[in-house]
Amino acid sequence: MPYIRETIVTTADRAGKVHIAPIGIIAERDGWVIAPFRPSVTLDNLAEVPFAVANYTDDVQTFAGCLTGRREWPTLAVAGCPVPRLSNALAHSVLEVVEVSEDGIRPRHFCRVVSEATHAPFTGFNRAKAAVLELAILVSRLGMLPREKIEAEIGYLSIAIEKTAGPNEKEAWGWLMQKVTDHFAGEDAGGEEARRG
Amino acid sequence: MPYIRETIVTTADRAGKVHIAPIGIIAERDGWVIAPFRPSVTLDNLAEVPFAVANYTDDVQTFAGCLTGRREWPTLAVAGCPVPRLSNALAHSVLEVVEVSEDGIRPRHFCRVVSEATHAPFTGFNRAKAAVLELAILVSRLGMLPREKIEAEIGYLSIAIEKTAGPNEKEAWGWLMQKVTDHFAGEDAGGEEARRG
Repeated sequence: MPYIRETIVTTADRAGKVHIAPIGIIAERDGWVIAPFRPSVTLDNLAEVPFAVANYTDDVQTFAGCLTGRREWPTLAVAGCPVPRLSNALAHSVLEVVEVSEDGIRPRHFCRVVSEATHAPFTGFNRAKAAVLELAILVSRLGMLPREKIEAEIGYLSIAIEKTAGPNEKEAWGWLMQKVTDHFAGEDAGGEEARRG
Repeated sequence: MPYIRETIVTTADRAGKVHIAPIGIIAERDGWVIAPFRPSVTLDNLAEVPFAVANYTDDVQTFAGCLTGRREWPTLAVAGCPVPRLSNALAHSVLEVVEVSEDGIRPRHFCRVVSEATHAPFTGFNRAKAAVLELAILVSRLGMLPREKIEAEIGYLSIAIEKTAGPNEKEAWGWLMQKVTDHFAGEDAGGEEARRG
């Protein structure tokens, strides 16, 4: 499988309304593939405005926020691009869609890199950031995974949180864990309903 | 626990011989704590030359390499600093030791940030890079962990490698897995010796 960058992708519709979504962009030839799920706002936006900004941020609150109803993150205009970037991007690539391969689930948008810019220094790996990212991916698949697997992975990931997180990562972790708790509570309630029915 | 940046720390002895080591630097007040194990070259070097460079690289081959006998990584001089930085650092901080708290295992060197610089853009999170980093940490503790735990963690981490690694990450993963294989082979051989004995 090819290399995947975990990014926050910004897109816009024809009216200029911005949408942000955590998307793994896939290395292909000299460009990157964006494969948004059908249906999705990103997919609609790319059909209207064939540009996207891949935001390289290490602020895991943006990833966790997008999965927990916190979709408002500050953006900044990018010169010559119809789509803004995230203010907290350490760097970004402006991508232009040059080819779409239709697909019933995830149409692949092959993009060329139009321009790139750096905004702030990378400050090193942090195991807690990686753990929040993994939990975010887990949360996006809650309905598809058995409870034991979810709990085992959380148990493993929580070690890095305890050992290496700062306040930012702890808060992001908390947002996602609330969603996990709510999901299990819903499952339990659903189970009771079923038994009552 | 405080925030920890996983970095490659460069230090030098009085003669200018450079040493590089993967070290998690610990956030404290307005600076960073380096707590090298006793005994270690980093510890000796800091006693001779009280400066270190925290290299913020996302090249996981450097982390994996330092644990598998591949300690030669290109460095570049930093103006006004007796210690060089790694060539592949995306950014770095020059740290000066201002206070040492003695400790039988890991003396804590509190450092102030002398200067910082950015060299290349961050290109986004990559789950495989994080997995290599976790495996590197696991490899550094092979002798302390039960085989089942090591194998379970590798099973979990290998998913991100299969799904998101590029050639760089695959090679780094391979270096570390060779070390794991050698370790288990040694254990098995040791076991046989013991049975024969």
